[in-house]
Amino acid sequence: MVAGLALTQEQRELLKQRRQRLGELLPFPVLLWAGGRSPRNFPHNGYPYRASSHFLYFAGIPIEQAVIRLQAGRLELFVDDPPPGAALWHGPSPTREELAAQIGAEAAYPLSELGSFSGEALTLGVQDAATRIQQAHILNRGIPAAPDLHPQDEPLAEAVVQLRLCQDAFALEQMRTAAAVTVEAHRAGMAASRQAKRESEVRAAMEQAICAQQMTVAYTSIVTVHGEVLHNEAYHHRLQPGDLLLADVGAESPLGWAADVTRTWPVSGQFSPTQRELYEVVRQAHDACIAQAAPGVEYRELHLLAAQVIASGLVELGILRGDPHTLVERDAHALFFPHGIGHLLGLDVHDMEDLGDRAGYAAGRQRSQRFGLGYLRLDRPLQAGMVVTIEPGFYQVPALLQDPVRRQRYDDCVNWERLAQFADVRGIRIEDDVLITPTGCEVLTAALPSHPEEIETWVMG
Amino acid sequence: MVAGLALTQEQRELLKQRRQRLGELLPFPVLLWAGGRSPRNFPHNGYPYRASSHFLYFAGIPIEQAVIRLQAGRLELFVDDPPPGAALWHGPSPTREELAAQIGAEAAYPLSELGSFSGEALTLGVQDAATRIQQAHILNRGIPAAPDLHPQDEPLAEAVVQLRLCQDAFALEQMRTAAAVTVEAHRAGMAASRQAKRESEVRAAMEQAICAQQMTVAYTSIVTVHGEVLHNEAYHHRLQPGDLLLADVGAESPLGWAADVTRTWPVSGQFSPTQRELYEVVRQAHDACIAQAAPGVEYRELHLLAAQVIASGLVELGILRGDPHTLVERDAHALFFPHGIGHLLGLDVHDMEDLGDRAGYAAGRQRSQRFGLGYLRLDRPLQAGMVVTIEPGFYQVPALLQDPVRRQRYDDCVNWERLAQFADVRGIRIEDDVLITPTGCEVLTAALPSHPEEIETWVMG
Repeated sequence: MVAGLALTQEQRELLKQRRQRLGELLPFPVLLWAGGRSPRNFPHNGYPYRASSHFLYFAGIPIEQAVIRLQAGRLELFVDDPPPGAALWHGPSPTREELAAQIGAEAAYPLSELGSFSGEALTLGVQDAATRIQQAHILNRGIPAAPDLHPQDEPLAEAVVQLRLCQDAFALEQMRTAAAVTVEAHRAGMAASRQAKRESEVRAAMEQAICAQQMTVAYTSIVTVHGEVLHNEAYHHRLQPGDLLLADVGAESPLGWAADVTRTWPVSGQFSPTQRELYEVVRQAHDACIAQAAPGVEYRELHLLAAQVIASGLVELGILRGDPHTLVERDAHALFFPHGIGHLLGLDVHDMEDLGDRAGYAAGRQRSQRFGLGYLRLDRPLQAGMVVTIEPGFYQVPALLQDPVRRQRYDDCVNWERLAQFADVRGIRIEDDVLITPTGCEVLTAALPSHPEEIETWVMG
Repeated sequence: MVAGLALTQEQRELLKQRRQRLGELLPFPVLLWAGGRSPRNFPHNGYPYRASSHFLYFAGIPIEQAVIRLQAGRLELFVDDPPPGAALWHGPSPTREELAAQIGAEAAYPLSELGSFSGEALTLGVQDAATRIQQAHILNRGIPAAPDLHPQDEPLAEAVVQLRLCQDAFALEQMRTAAAVTVEAHRAGMAASRQAKRESEVRAAMEQAICAQQMTVAYTSIVTVHGEVLHNEAYHHRLQPGDLLLADVGAESPLGWAADVTRTWPVSGQFSPTQRELYEVVRQAHDACIAQAAPGVEYRELHLLAAQVIASGLVELGILRGDPHTLVERDAHALFFPHGIGHLLGLDVHDMEDLGDRAGYAAGRQRSQRFGLGYLRLDRPLQAGMVVTIEPGFYQVPALLQDPVRRQRYDDCVNWERLAQFADVRGIRIEDDVLITPTGCEVLTAALPSHPEEIETWVMG
């Protein structure tokens, strides 16, 4: 399906540059499958099609069931023309030659010829298992499910990570459009909150703003008054006047590029004093990280900076006791901020997470065993062109705070009685998408307010 | 995930009756897998979860990765408790025992014990290929992708078809809620049309109404000014004042039951004279079929009735020439109404289409080779309790009308010059969901107007 997805000459040129750089990094031929439609409850009722991100990176547009072959900058397309009768159901479709011209392929063949072009080719497994079986069949070797890789494909994964870590003008133009629509969605959500009776109504208003712009959500939306459930996918709770609503919703552009934004706002339009105090702690952490983000800075240091700001804020509020630096060393901050400060963003909302930690972690680094660091998804020095999220939070997660082992370990540094006074805060997160520039960074989603007064104004309408 | 999906005692009793009836029809044990989440662009970014319809039919609620075993009315549940740490990300989850109580299972075990309960069991393949591999592993035989079946599983498919053909009170309650929300969605779409600039904005307004009610779409929405593309999935066209918009959008209830409704309305709020004339032909076909739908009536006869009414109407308008009965025998109606009059509706929008034509076609019947009948999805005598769609249409499909072979074959009976006067009609369809009752039928979606004047009123707001 490429209806309405025509590429410009400039976009085609940037795609060509990606392929040339791949050719410089890798002496082997590469086959990348777009993948097929995943069936929902029967074969002809599929989920909305999403091509593999690696295919999209080099071909630019989604082409169902297509395969591309890349070698030394040359691009060949393998795809079948639509079967006879398809026009009745699906309308006129571009021919193989038209698709080849669209993506700038030097040659195009039916899929039946793929076998004779597959020798020595490396690949990356797609997400749908049915297509992965075809990959294994064509290449005559096992293609494991992500994040595992056949050892032969490791050099391809490394080259792809090297390319996709920093975004080019094509990617940034797409990500800016996704960011702009995401900002609109959050504004729509704030505006809908006072009238809404349930979470689902706010979610619907936000996703409507995305759908109306011919985009889709980049990930399952989180729109909940139970922000303490980090990946909450329930939308049935009633909104009560004293609730904070946490909305983590991002658009994906038609060519597959993601935005990922969280805001937290009072359903009533007015933060309570306790909500405002904790909101400001999170916002200080958010602002501090953005102020520091620049090429050469270790992302892990931004995470620890956020932890430090949050620990200091909680000490000031009397929730934690002790020296903030020591508290962070003891992971006491992670009782309330248990996840990482963010992740890479690109074609995937957690960019290249299908490759495991190969993208997120610099060579030789691995996940920490520490409670306060183990969930960090990115541990690299920042480079100009990277897009990352910055998303500190504060949560009261019963599974953490009621855990007897943790309660004992941190009993000396948590003032439980003081904490109980903040019971009207279950979860707060503020998340923006940040492009690292040569001199610092640019917040792609800066048009969305994070100041509490501005948020209140938007909710009040 | 079963947040907010508690079953009533009455629902549990109806589920038990389904299982008892299966036990009476089939002497073998049965294993049914709910299936897993299909990954989108990386493993942890999945499409919204939809459990297998066969699992839902007997278990009532979606339980990711669960398996049920059915024998002689007895229900056993196999599911793993959530892994440690899951509560942080996904909140508190029901335990295995709570899930078992919820669905009325007599016993519950971890998945690791499934192997020792699998002897002689029949199954039906789920949609996600990853789970199908597990099915094959547990049962130690091939589990082909739908609509193919392992020969051993044919008796189960037959029994399931026999059960699911007619809907019980549980199913009808769910389908009525899906129908009600679908009616709201179409009203929202009509109301949004005059202000909307593109198809995507109308689609967004319609899906918002569904999402707000904690439902999802039962299938990919068709919202288009190019109604002649039967399964159109593009939403980028601009709305022009003279356009007809065709919207085929249906909600699915939280427990998985579908609605499927189409309306066609003028974007401007006023049908042109030619649009109104053809709309009335389609509406007459729609009304005639509903007037005839009753137990014992062959669904195929309703299809031919619609063909006859459409042929007669087109003769009256001067588009076709000749005797309507002869025109239908020659399939001339199918130039403009090339699809079937409808299909079964239930847990799937084309109910049980994963079983091929086993559900749609009575034993011993098969698809016609005739152009005007081959796309018919249902060929059975109607029975009380069946829910079917009635969806006649009129389309000007270039792939059919420009086809030289067809133009020659029907040259004597089509007045091409007269047809050209109706160029402002590309596609019209009117579709409702119809429950067959003991004495006739009930239109579940009757609250949605199909009279052109009422539709104009809704669009005009």
